[in-house]
Amino acid sequence: MSRGGWTLESFDRLIHEPARLMIVTILNAVESADFLYLQHETGLTKGNLSAHLAKLEEGGYVEIEKTYKGKIPLTVCRLTDAGRDAFSRYRAQWEVFIKQTRTSRK
Amino acid sequence: MSRGGWTLESFDRLIHEPARLMIVTILNAVESADFLYLQHETGLTKGNLSAHLAKLEEGGYVEIEKTYKGKIPLTVCRLTDAGRDAFSRYRAQWEVFIKQTRTSRK
Repeated sequence: MSRGGWTLESFDRLIHEPARLMIVTILNAVESADFLYLQHETGLTKGNLSAHLAKLEEGGYVEIEKTYKGKIPLTVCRLTDAGRDAFSRYRAQWEVFIKQTRTSRK
Repeated sequence: MSRGGWTLESFDRLIHEPARLMIVTILNAVESADFLYLQHETGLTKGNLSAHLAKLEEGGYVEIEKTYKGKIPLTVCRLTDAGRDAFSRYRAQWEVFIKQTRTSRK
């Protein structure tokens, strides 16, 4: 279905997965976010959040920095430029989708 | 993340999967569609399309009717009312998402 400006292939599955979509949406709205903040906001378990962040890091969308705040270890996550671009493209596809679909023809 | 009006749980995964999203979007725009038409529009293999339609039928979103046009067997697919409602809800969630996100804060 190429008519619509959005196709099966064009959806970025790295972002489309709902848990990762939440993570990327949050990170897109901020400069950077601590792991615990992300965990609180997404409601994901530590293991799930780690796994999704690792995938996003592998894909070049997220940078993860291990640091300290005083003596407390901090894991700071931020979107890369590639990640912000990918989010923009993904969001733009949904804008097209919204414009080109109607809720029902009943 | 409940602030946004869309949450991890609220995404209907039966529709969210990209291949099924294409199928549902096409069916939402028409009264009914033949299997071969859907296959052509989605670019899915026969096996993949069958599998996704079966899931949508199990979920009560699609009705599948085996019939004939003359002597040619036809498989006619249509969205149920529940399927149209689910599509409307899913689409509405993306409208909220578009309104509440910005492409970047760079």
